[in-house]
Amino acid sequence: VGWFAKPSNTQNHKDSSHYLKDFLGEMKADKIREHLRKFTQLPHLAGTEQNLKYAEQIMKEWQMFGLDSVEMVPYDVLLSYPNESQPNYISIVDHLGNEIFNTSLAEPVPQGYEDISNIVPPYSAFSAKGQPEGDLVYVNYGRTEDFSQLQRVMGINVTGKIVIVRYGKIFRGNKVKNAVLAGAKGIIMFSDPADYWADGIQPYPDGWNLPGRGAQRGNVLNLNGAGDPLTPGYPAKEYTYRFSPEDGVGLPNIPVHPIGFHDAILLLNNMGGEIPPNNWKGALNVSYRIGPGFTDDFKSQKVRMNIHTNNQVTRIYNVIGKIRGAQEPDRYVILGGHRDAWVFGGIDPMSGAAVVHETVRSAGRLLSTGWRPRRTIIFASWDAEEFGLLGSTEWAEDNARLLQERAVAYINADSAIEGENVVYGFICMWADLNYHRSNPEEGEEGVSLYESWHKRDNWTNDRDAPRISKLGSGSDFEAYFIRLGIASGRARYTKNAKTERYSSYPVYHSVYETFEIVEKFYDPSFKRLQAVAQVRGALIFLLADSQLLPLDVNEYADSLRKYAQSIAQLAQKNLRAMVMYKVSFDSLFSAVENFTVAARDFHERLQTLNKADPLQLRIMNDQLMYLERAFIDPLGLPGRPFYRHVIFAPSSHNKYAGESFPGIYDALFDIENSADPAKAWEEVKRQISIAAFTVHAAAMTLTPPA
Amino acid sequence: VGWFAKPSNTQNHKDSSHYLKDFLGEMKADKIREHLRKFTQLPHLAGTEQNLKYAEQIMKEWQMFGLDSVEMVPYDVLLSYPNESQPNYISIVDHLGNEIFNTSLAEPVPQGYEDISNIVPPYSAFSAKGQPEGDLVYVNYGRTEDFSQLQRVMGINVTGKIVIVRYGKIFRGNKVKNAVLAGAKGIIMFSDPADYWADGIQPYPDGWNLPGRGAQRGNVLNLNGAGDPLTPGYPAKEYTYRFSPEDGVGLPNIPVHPIGFHDAILLLNNMGGEIPPNNWKGALNVSYRIGPGFTDDFKSQKVRMNIHTNNQVTRIYNVIGKIRGAQEPDRYVILGGHRDAWVFGGIDPMSGAAVVHETVRSAGRLLSTGWRPRRTIIFASWDAEEFGLLGSTEWAEDNARLLQERAVAYINADSAIEGENVVYGFICMWADLNYHRSNPEEGEEGVSLYESWHKRDNWTNDRDAPRISKLGSGSDFEAYFIRLGIASGRARYTKNAKTERYSSYPVYHSVYETFEIVEKFYDPSFKRLQAVAQVRGALIFLLADSQLLPLDVNEYADSLRKYAQSIAQLAQKNLRAMVMYKVSFDSLFSAVENFTVAARDFHERLQTLNKADPLQLRIMNDQLMYLERAFIDPLGLPGRPFYRHVIFAPSSHNKYAGESFPGIYDALFDIENSADPAKAWEEVKRQISIAAFTVHAAAMTLTPPA
Repeated sequence: VGWFAKPSNTQNHKDSSHYLKDFLGEMKADKIREHLRKFTQLPHLAGTEQNLKYAEQIMKEWQMFGLDSVEMVPYDVLLSYPNESQPNYISIVDHLGNEIFNTSLAEPVPQGYEDISNIVPPYSAFSAKGQPEGDLVYVNYGRTEDFSQLQRVMGINVTGKIVIVRYGKIFRGNKVKNAVLAGAKGIIMFSDPADYWADGIQPYPDGWNLPGRGAQRGNVLNLNGAGDPLTPGYPAKEYTYRFSPEDGVGLPNIPVHPIGFHDAILLLNNMGGEIPPNNWKGALNVSYRIGPGFTDDFKSQKVRMNIHTNNQVTRIYNVIGKIRGAQEPDRYVILGGHRDAWVFGGIDPMSGAAVVHETVRSAGRLLSTGWRPRRTIIFASWDAEEFGLLGSTEWAEDNARLLQERAVAYINADSAIEGENVVYGFICMWADLNYHRSNPEEGEEGVSLYESWHKRDNWTNDRDAPRISKLGSGSDFEAYFIRLGIASGRARYTKNAKTERYSSYPVYHSVYETFEIVEKFYDPSFKRLQAVAQVRGALIFLLADSQLLPLDVNEYADSLRKYAQSIAQLAQKNLRAMVMYKVSFDSLFSAVENFTVAARDFHERLQTLNKADPLQLRIMNDQLMYLERAFIDPLGLPGRPFYRHVIFAPSSHNKYAGESFPGIYDALFDIENSADPAKAWEEVKRQISIAAFTVHAAAMTLTPPA
Repeated sequence: VGWFAKPSNTQNHKDSSHYLKDFLGEMKADKIREHLRKFTQLPHLAGTEQNLKYAEQIMKEWQMFGLDSVEMVPYDVLLSYPNESQPNYISIVDHLGNEIFNTSLAEPVPQGYEDISNIVPPYSAFSAKGQPEGDLVYVNYGRTEDFSQLQRVMGINVTGKIVIVRYGKIFRGNKVKNAVLAGAKGIIMFSDPADYWADGIQPYPDGWNLPGRGAQRGNVLNLNGAGDPLTPGYPAKEYTYRFSPEDGVGLPNIPVHPIGFHDAILLLNNMGGEIPPNNWKGALNVSYRIGPGFTDDFKSQKVRMNIHTNNQVTRIYNVIGKIRGAQEPDRYVILGGHRDAWVFGGIDPMSGAAVVHETVRSAGRLLSTGWRPRRTIIFASWDAEEFGLLGSTEWAEDNARLLQERAVAYINADSAIEGENVVYGFICMWADLNYHRSNPEEGEEGVSLYESWHKRDNWTNDRDAPRISKLGSGSDFEAYFIRLGIASGRARYTKNAKTERYSSYPVYHSVYETFEIVEKFYDPSFKRLQAVAQVRGALIFLLADSQLLPLDVNEYADSLRKYAQSIAQLAQKNLRAMVMYKVSFDSLFSAVENFTVAARDFHERLQTLNKADPLQLRIMNDQLMYLERAFIDPLGLPGRPFYRHVIFAPSSHNKYAGESFPGIYDALFDIENSADPAKAWEEVKRQISIAAFTVHAAAMTLTPPA
């Protein structure tokens, strides 16, 4: 992965550094503002006409900007839409079955957008259809540990019940999966102010908090990287065989629906049952009783979900633009981000798409001055990310052979900003940025972006660099990084890590993600978006144009050591069991040691490399490029054939959380819930062995090739 | 695959052609005779001390010959040996349970070897232990269609019976699997003279036929490419996690035992039941009645198997020697063959190992004259091939990342000769041989080997070349070709294709495979082995030393078209069902057309390639090298995760038979036996779609890289 990227090697791109300066200098805040304005006028949900129109416009403009080629690449994938004639909602019904309360059918539309049609109401994409009726049970965030506490400690069985959980902490699809596993017949998710409300901030349009009637759309799949649910492993082309919907990957078999906190209060208000522990309580003025069902006076009332959402195979469109590499056209550096949005996509994803657009414009200008990168650069505008990373995954499946042999790196370009004024990097790949770009914040003029990020969130005491998070999933890098093993990175402004880690910005996936929320609150000068454009742009420039790839194997070795220590520490919590079952991390530590030595030796050989010899240079660059590939296990992680990266993958319990040594991590997690600890520990041992082997194998790729 | 190898491109290796001449000219028949003599003195079963001694000797001699490096690479894999204190045998027992007949405990040892110890008696490696007793049922060759005929046409259920089948036609492991699936509690395999006896030939030592008391050893696993049964997917190192034996891959759960026809007569003689159809009858003087059980007078007699064979984790040793490539050390050409033998290994494998040894000697001589190949050459002496291709598969697993990125080709070097005097190639990779080597046969002086092979077995009318068979499995190329997608080939003298195709030479895997059987009958002058050394040697030389890889993409296109036609034709047998279930091969044909165009264009671009530009040359060579890799599907074939080649793999019903489009082939095969034809045809459609996609994807790898 990425922070195997090399911080500072000026010599390496000395010749091309004035091009880099021109490239970054050409990126303008005003232009990014224009792009964002242009592509957030209308809702452009994946599979709709408007999203195709934007694709055509992007294609046309990229051609105009001067790319060597731009093409539209369609796939026919399973999407999911509410039924237009039968709205989705949740009711409280009385003992006669009359609906005495219904949740709202739509969010109040923000000012200026009243006449816009095609705003899809809040829904859970890929929900099962159905009208289950029953008692509610409140299960906190719906995490594995929440369900476990509910069942084991509180003694409540949710079989046949409808569960209600708050959004946050983990990916919503994991909540749904947990509800299904627990036997619930429906699941309601709400945005609690505790997780989606910043103190002292007004709700939109007066501030950037989520209004009470706003709700979070989102898919509730458990794809684990499969892409289109009906064509796992293969691109969804016209001739491609499709599974029947019952055999589709990751589709929940119960109804699911999201609501805002305004509606949530009314559902939670009369709930009966026990008062939960404090960490189950949100910030609403209710008691957060667990249920099942309502309290005494309201006992005869039930909750009914009315869900009529349809799955349907729909055509989507990626836009793929290329700049042919001059010396090594068969080496690819990819900058990709999605275009489809739940509604306007002011932040998600158009703040990222506008940045890509400006990057392409600037690259086109540079091309016209006679520059051409050493390697090929590929720009991608992905479709249907919101429906399970479908556009990017189908294209990765379509081009898997080429990417495996040829891709140097993938840089992701989803939302460029998700925090108001706290500035630092959620970034997984480093390059030499400190002298290219200064911090746009007031009062920090003259401080470089790098230093400013560093100051705001230091990595650890033993590493002199800004914090770099591990890649989990939840955006389009997934197939490139976790399935194909292509070194990947992302960079954006994010919120303060001291606030909730996995609960996104308040208006996330609501109708309130407009152009105006960025213009008014997140980046009025558009200088932050410009800074992101320059960071992402510098990454692809340096990856594509440096003679020697700017990747640092020693950084990878350091990270592996840290991860090995940390996973071993996690296991130590069960020291007695480890002794009993003879579990040892020695093989992993020894592999990491081996890797460290190989990395150091490789790095030394790099110093004496004759860069004038094109074959010698290519051979060492190939070793650098393929290092990330070496961490791929073709057998995949247990039960997740499309997650194949042994060092980084999301936990099985939360798609958003990137874990190191995810196979071991999941096996340790399962210890807690296993009825057969001896067997569970065997799996831990097996996973340690796989990790150790993989690290050894990766080390081998760094030794002299013969 | 290989006959994508280019026949004649003298220009390509003009500069090095005198080295090639020297390399081949140095290979001497006498030396090969010496090597064979030396390495067949003593039994050297995998896992025994003697096989380690031979490994050490080979290592020492390869070092002496002048390789750059030679190392011993050990693995700890599951092997299987008879219990020394409790011999395996089969009895007829009377109604009191007394054993009134026992099969022989060993083969009569050939003259001159009487004092040799450690000759392992005939056994089925990895047989389950046990002493099942019951009625015999005769099931011809034990093929899927034989069991199907038995159950459906003849109405015989073998549940709880012991089946007896003749060797031949298919891999013995498939027979055992079929018996297990049918519910048998034991299986006996015998060598029938119809399959293991050539007319007019004496049994050994007066001729090369199998004596009546000779029997065929062999493993009875169904590994499908997994390697060591306890560590599927990972190399069996000291730290590697091992499954418990119950969870091992491919181990049969019933006793299995092989016998010669002398013993078979006595088991079959009194069998009752129906007379079978003529194609179930072998050449023994018995009626081949099906049973179950013995005829009237003998009805109370049962058959008892006494099997005490043990599985045990045992250390094995590969020997790996290398010549470092001068320009592209990170490109590997591999010549590998196994060393372990059931007993002496006169033919299998030492006729191949002697040839490798001579190739290494000659390469060492050439090195000492100042030559060094462009690419790295790797020589391998594999261990434990007879126990499921274990040595070669573990090494492939250990080095999978390196091989995937770097291996140009794998040439297999198992038995070099298996026919007495009929000469032609069982070869899957072509090179420019006709002027390097003339035919060693008397009366054919002056005729080139190529022409002579061509004359004896023409390919088809539309192809002017000798016959080239598809690679199935059953030897060490399996992991390299079918799992990793490395272009692979083999070349040997074989028997006449007009005789039985899958029933090997008569003394196969018996104690009679001695040095003398080669010296007296198969190759008295050792000129045939010399010819094989030169053919295999020329292949690795040209692959390692040609500037441009000698691989012809147009040949691959031609083959794909032929295969597509032939699999579509096979499906046409069910024309009505194809119409009913809307099965079409159009997508496959269109993909093949696409591939053909891409191959032709690629070939044209090759003509204008500036070979003086090292990067351009490397880029096109990479496209050639990775073409075979493009046919790999990481998801594997259905139920066979380690068979991943979409174009070539063994049928699920016979490991020896290489089928083209094996996914489609197996799906069509299953139509016959399926209880749910609609579902079975869905699988055919899915497989056609996968094949079409794979061919499209491979075509893409041949287009200009950007």
